[in-house]
Amino acid sequence: MTEYTTFTSESVSEGHPDKIADQISDAILDAILAEDPRARVACETMVKTGVAIISGEISTNAWVDLESIVRGVINDIGYTSSDVGFDGATCSVINIIGKQSPEINQGVDRESLEEQGAGDQGLMFGYASDETDVLMPASITYAHRLVERQARVRRDGTLPWLRPDAKSQITLRYGADGRPEAIEAVVLSTQHNPDIALADLREAVIEEIIRPVLPAEWLSDATQYFINPTGKFVIGGPVGDCGLTGRKIIVDSYGGMARHGGGAFSGKDPSKVDRSAAYAGRWVAKNIVAAGLASRCEIQVSYAIGVAQPTSISLNCFGTETVPVDRIVAAVREVFDLRPFAIIRELDLLHPIYRPTASYGHFGRAPYPLAGATAFSWEQTDRAEALKAALDYDG
Amino acid sequence: MTEYTTFTSESVSEGHPDKIADQISDAILDAILAEDPRARVACETMVKTGVAIISGEISTNAWVDLESIVRGVINDIGYTSSDVGFDGATCSVINIIGKQSPEINQGVDRESLEEQGAGDQGLMFGYASDETDVLMPASITYAHRLVERQARVRRDGTLPWLRPDAKSQITLRYGADGRPEAIEAVVLSTQHNPDIALADLREAVIEEIIRPVLPAEWLSDATQYFINPTGKFVIGGPVGDCGLTGRKIIVDSYGGMARHGGGAFSGKDPSKVDRSAAYAGRWVAKNIVAAGLASRCEIQVSYAIGVAQPTSISLNCFGTETVPVDRIVAAVREVFDLRPFAIIRELDLLHPIYRPTASYGHFGRAPYPLAGATAFSWEQTDRAEALKAALDYDG
Ligand SMILES: C[S@@+](CC[C@H](N)C(=O)[O-])C[C@H]1O[C@@H](n2cnc3c(N)ncnc32)[C@H](O)[C@@H]1O
Ligand SMILES: C[S@@+](CC[C@H](N)C(=O)[O-])C[C@H]1O[C@@H](n2cnc3c(N)ncnc32)[C@H](O)[C@@H]1O
Repeated sequence: MTEYTTFTSESVSEGHPDKIADQISDAILDAILAEDPRARVACETMVKTGVAIISGEISTNAWVDLESIVRGVINDIGYTSSDVGFDGATCSVINIIGKQSPEINQGVDRESLEEQGAGDQGLMFGYASDETDVLMPASITYAHRLVERQARVRRDGTLPWLRPDAKSQITLRYGADGRPEAIEAVVLSTQHNPDIALADLREAVIEEIIRPVLPAEWLSDATQYFINPTGKFVIGGPVGDCGLTGRKIIVDSYGGMARHGGGAFSGKDPSKVDRSAAYAGRWVAKNIVAAGLASRCEIQVSYAIGVAQPTSISLNCFGTETVPVDRIVAAVREVFDLRPFAIIRELDLLHPIYRPTASYGHFGRAPYPLAGATAFSWEQTDRAEALKAALDYDG
Repeated sequence: MTEYTTFTSESVSEGHPDKIADQISDAILDAILAEDPRARVACETMVKTGVAIISGEISTNAWVDLESIVRGVINDIGYTSSDVGFDGATCSVINIIGKQSPEINQGVDRESLEEQGAGDQGLMFGYASDETDVLMPASITYAHRLVERQARVRRDGTLPWLRPDAKSQITLRYGADGRPEAIEAVVLSTQHNPDIALADLREAVIEEIIRPVLPAEWLSDATQYFINPTGKFVIGGPVGDCGLTGRKIIVDSYGGMARHGGGAFSGKDPSKVDRSAAYAGRWVAKNIVAAGLASRCEIQVSYAIGVAQPTSISLNCFGTETVPVDRIVAAVREVFDLRPFAIIRELDLLHPIYRPTASYGHFGRAPYPLAGATAFSWEQTDRAEALKAALDYDG
């Protein structure tokens, strides 16, 4: 369901340096929100050889042991010794976090709770399509599943020579009916122990990671495999590549199939519309598709800092709508309250739910089982009936 | 020229913290490329209250005084005293840069120069549309012009109470003919001296920044203005907001109108396809539109690390094509060599040309006059005739 005949998306594992940074930022956010739901958090992380630097702006009454959180995240991912390149127990943790500017805060906290201003200006998109049963584009869905699987077989001992850092990429071919019909190329690079031979690694990756995950009917002799194409990937994590929060925003969202407003998610409490309005956008778009109003839908919203109502709400159904788009927009305005306070209330966002979002995508899935959480509120299709009712639609 | 009835894009000034980081990363890249065109540079910067941290991976024989470069960029932007919140002369400069992993390098440097492997996997988009004469979407074009103008009137003394940090945002309405017809909302926040009253600031911003830049026929009584909506913005730059390289990738590219692969540009030498292939994508798309083959065109390319040929090339003309899309793709393959080495050669990318790209957008313009450079090679329409010839097209 795209105008492209082939489309490529990528993902990265939880051990990728940018994802280490995202997970640290969100773990800090969670620890603070657990104690102080009114906290304001914008936490940015940089990881490089032997060091994790946490920065940003935080205003809270909570006391949390930031250093332990940082070390815990790094260790949980599997960076537990200099052998793998990074060690949560012994790396340096540097804290240069400041407070939220009171001038920004005066724009956000308004007399009326409902009128809470957006924490920043910006544009955000939400997207859904009926291409997969999770209403996500297929290419990003399978790219995520490859790296999820890499983490699983690393952890469960199936391929004990795997190390945490990995990347995947899929080129999908679409048929004349607009449905995915074949995988033209699979790229998978994974960090590994020095003692596994390249040929053995490639075979194991195909057998234990790629085949169990990708639909067999999409693979053929024409599928090109690029497995560890550099030939060696022992050095990984922050030694090989500096990691920063917010540098995997396309992996985090729709794999490039949808437009993106540019704002990052991790480390931001939901007063920041970059995160909360993008989550709401997914929720709106998914409900539109679930209601049968379109088979593919992208919504753009935008905000001005300090202002509650969006400065714009706009919809693109790529011609797949079953009801005129302007009528769907009117129904969205009726059914969804997209002021920050309302989004936070309706999606119940003031809880420590963020760390599981920080790897394998924020959309189209339940939290990664290893993380222990159960469901993301923005994936509910609880407003589909209300949308249909608002439109007198029973298709 | 979009499926949206309204569309919103934003930009930020050179004094925005993320843009300080981008400019530092690109200034370091330039200084190294000037001495050593074969250097490998991936430079990431974090700026926060009183400190600039430079990180990433660099392999070079050049000796450059990194500390002076960092201080110079900060001062050039106008952060020259604690009064404005940041001072290039006295801030701390911390260097935690490492070397490029030899295992990545073995994938990039191949025996044959032409077969130089891509420096990373990834997907990149290029875009052009005939919506403006620079073949860019209108919303991002005017959002950039607002913040460029902010910098100009700050520097030339017209509004001496302006400080470097600023953001702009425009909501554009499209008419039935698919052309921009009105501006629904303008958001502009600018840092300022404490001694200017809010009402005076708002009036001056309208008169000296907004009116000189935005087409009068798009403004009306219905246009909403949000000027410094928080009411106060004296604290700006890294004190109010931690800045990171690569966190304004939508501002850097097409303002959200085009899809994005997720890779950042600044700090990366062109062996990194995140940058060079995105530049090439713009070049290809612009030539397609200039040739009259489509009025709107988006190209996706993707790469596997260590491999020269793209793993995919795919095109979307949104139904505006004058020749079937698969034939245009074939012509692109014939006329453009999209291997990294060829892109670098054809676009002449191994020069210190990057710092001027790091503010006000990488596409659709000549370098910002203040920066002193003249033209960006990827904006040339030098292949339009070759595309037409390959397609026997003379429309
Ligand atoms: C190639 S690095 C980015 C470029 C890097 N900053 C440089 O200086 O060349 C991006 C990601 O690729 C992966 N990677 C690192 N080393 C690799 C190797 N030897 N082979 C394949 N992929 C690798 C890691 O996931 C890393 O975060
Ligand atoms: C609002 S800040 C991002 C949120 C911030 N990290 C926090 O903790 O609230 C994003 C940008 O807004 C601009 N900004 C900073 N202070 C502002 C103010 N008082 N009013 C309007 N815009 C402001 C600056 O350009 C800054 O980089």
